[in-house]
Amino acid sequence: MASEPVSTVFFLSDFGTQDEFAGVVHAVIAARAPGTTVIDLTHHIPPFDVRAGSHTLVRAVPHLGSGVVLGVVDPGVGTARRGICMEVAVRAGGTLFFVGPDNGLLVAAAEAAGEAPITRVVELARDPAPDRGATFDGRDLFAPVVAALCSGTATLLQLGEPIDPASLARLPGGVVEQGRLHDGRTCLRAEVTWVDHFGNLQLAATVADARVAGMPAVGSIELAARIESGREYLDGLPHSLVPDGVQLRCVDAFGALERGEFGIIADANGHLAVVAAEASAAHWLNVVAGELLVLAW
Amino acid sequence: MASEPVSTVFFLSDFGTQDEFAGVVHAVIAARAPGTTVIDLTHHIPPFDVRAGSHTLVRAVPHLGSGVVLGVVDPGVGTARRGICMEVAVRAGGTLFFVGPDNGLLVAAAEAAGEAPITRVVELARDPAPDRGATFDGRDLFAPVVAALCSGTATLLQLGEPIDPASLARLPGGVVEQGRLHDGRTCLRAEVTWVDHFGNLQLAATVADARVAGMPAVGSIELAARIESGREYLDGLPHSLVPDGVQLRCVDAFGALERGEFGIIADANGHLAVVAAEASAAHWLNVVAGELLVLAW
Amino acid sequence: MASEPVSTVFFLSDFGTQDEFAGVVHAVIAARAPGTTVIDLTHHIPPFDVRAGSHTLVRAVPHLGSGVVLGVVDPGVGTARRGICMEVAVRAGGTLFFVGPDNGLLVAAAEAAGEAPITRVVELARDPAPDRGATFDGRDLFAPVVAALCSGTATLLQLGEPIDPASLARLPGGVVEQGRLHDGRTCLRAEVTWVDHFGNLQLAATVADARVAGMPAVGSIELAARIESGREYLDGLPHSLVPDGVQLRCVDAFGALERGEFGIIADANGHLAVVAAEASAAHWLNVVAGELLVLAW
Repeated sequence: MASEPVSTVFFLSDFGTQDEFAGVVHAVIAARAPGTTVIDLTHHIPPFDVRAGSHTLVRAVPHLGSGVVLGVVDPGVGTARRGICMEVAVRAGGTLFFVGPDNGLLVAAAEAAGEAPITRVVELARDPAPDRGATFDGRDLFAPVVAALCSGTATLLQLGEPIDPASLARLPGGVVEQGRLHDGRTCLRAEVTWVDHFGNLQLAATVADARVAGMPAVGSIELAARIESGREYLDGLPHSLVPDGVQLRCVDAFGALERGEFGIIADANGHLAVVAAEASAAHWLNVVAGELLVLAW
Repeated sequence: MASEPVSTVFFLSDFGTQDEFAGVVHAVIAARAPGTTVIDLTHHIPPFDVRAGSHTLVRAVPHLGSGVVLGVVDPGVGTARRGICMEVAVRAGGTLFFVGPDNGLLVAAAEAAGEAPITRVVELARDPAPDRGATFDGRDLFAPVVAALCSGTATLLQLGEPIDPASLARLPGGVVEQGRLHDGRTCLRAEVTWVDHFGNLQLAATVADARVAGMPAVGSIELAARIESGREYLDGLPHSLVPDGVQLRCVDAFGALERGEFGIIADANGHLAVVAAEASAAHWLNVVAGELLVLAW
Repeated sequence: MASEPVSTVFFLSDFGTQDEFAGVVHAVIAARAPGTTVIDLTHHIPPFDVRAGSHTLVRAVPHLGSGVVLGVVDPGVGTARRGICMEVAVRAGGTLFFVGPDNGLLVAAAEAAGEAPITRVVELARDPAPDRGATFDGRDLFAPVVAALCSGTATLLQLGEPIDPASLARLPGGVVEQGRLHDGRTCLRAEVTWVDHFGNLQLAATVADARVAGMPAVGSIELAARIESGREYLDGLPHSLVPDGVQLRCVDAFGALERGEFGIIADANGHLAVVAAEASAAHWLNVVAGELLVLAW
């Protein structure tokens, strides 16, 4: 079965944009598969931060049509870690291919996009390059594969040998735990999975998680504590870095908050987010991705 | 009357590029209107700075062909502020649509582009999204509208109800005032509307304003004072933050200046700009956008 | 002879992306040559750094297909410096045009791309613009030329008068010198031509230079000294800014290094690079582009 050519590529990396890395990948695809539309999701994933890249892809995939997701956050480039391509039938119809390293970057997004468990995965075959290092698989391995899919010159199974989906590298999910504080209040401990450009703090907890935990949808929630990544904490007596708590008003729009006020909102991905009025909640609460927030009511 | 499909989108926002925001908007347009060219004007408008976004669009529109301008600097997203689409017949021929929030971001650019006052504006109809917040109109409201215009599946009037152009939100223009200093010299007080990547200071005053005020086109002009945004000042005795003044040599090219010298130039948009030789005038004069500069001769 | 239309533009500048500069250049090309694919190599060349721009283009050209390279790092804009277009038959087949200022930015890349010395160069003819400055040749001169090449409305010789390739402005090459330290060890002094987004230090020395100098390909090399740009040094007794030297382990992959270890690697361009394990060698060794590193064995 010949693959139908696909015409759109969704490209994410930690390449930054100060160098020519991302542009050269575009050029390789344009030369081999003219007419392909390559959309940059972002190239500003923090260097080597595979988990941040994975979260970003999970957020993006519900909004992509058919095409190829090219993800390159790849500290293991040049080592024995595999390059992979997955083919996924998308819930909304159509097909998404995922091309990149087998380090956990792609698999959560492929599962989020697909209507069924992943079954079609290959390990990409590779040719060694003469007289230059094997440090740029984005250009030398993945871009040619993407171009082959886009130009229809290769099917999935022509790209390499099938591998067992159970063997794919995976990352731990974000922490979401319901609990009870020593004062008897119910609490939700949730990891900050993303600090966006505006300083909004996305939590691993979804609107559905909040509903299950019985979190009120009106009034205020208390941000009772902030727990640094990797810190121990006692249940009911968390190591509090938010002195005396911070009130988060439940709102539907950033603009409903007064200057100086913090809020909690259902964000555009269906997750809870801690936000501030035309300001950076991350800055004012001194929170970074990977920390846990304890919300109490 | 069916709109003719348009093929180019000019996209400006304060989304930054560290997250997937802009990329996802591209993806929504690509999925619904394949073959559309989406050009990023910039996504680095300072967060929430509607005025900076408006200035940027005003500078850009003379150089755009037909297409859709998508502008999203939108602190009021999710509130009652309207989403709008304007259709403008462009001076140079062709049509530009402007899609975004009704907060003053788009109207000055639409007026600058058009050969006549704005007459065709609609308030965009919207569908509420289930189980996720209404915090990302760029993706959920504006991008589908842009795609409908580009694919020709909707005309302006199918996008929403017509509204009165006089009801559109507007921003104050940049300050340009001619005056006289206490020492008898003529002066021009002009707002710094833009500090660019190189640190050049664009003034609200145009080359034509300078001509009317009698500013010499050769020799040097004195930068007599800098007035911080919102500061009071006395006419003829401005609150000077530029001790003893700074000489600005009238030049036609950055390269005409010596190292360490400041200049005044007619910039690429026909405005006056205060510049330095291969250096940032903003840095060395300690000036930010929104301040007034007082030029004297 | 009519040029065949070309469909891809490779665009590099020092414009940054906070302003609309790069987007407006895209818009001018899209309006005049619809359907052209414009690929941004990078717009984050440090302001006015013609040499960094030249290095970046040299690295990129082996991976570009046919098309037009548009390079704008142009501190001399508006002065008497010429605008040029070169046409080069590419080693891999096809044609690359190079459009931009005659200040050394383009010529090394054109020579690297071509299978023969440059013979076809013209000085671009220009029309003065009324009532605005001549400060934005990227938009007003180069983009229209690029569009003319892409739409096939002009051949090289219709863009301006031929000029002598020997008259083109050139930059000095990167320093690579073999030598001997006072302790008898062989050394290679090589300029750091590029610090990339990850902090890897690319040297002017290639894998072939290392082979000629007899540098071992296994074990460790000593980074014996760092010489600041413009500093004097005595052969055999370099002004050392690396106290007691630093060991660089010869590796094939970043991932082969332990945390805290430095390495030397053949990079993706066939050059030597000094690297660190998931960290910035530039930061930890306190090295910037333009310095010399002395490698000894």
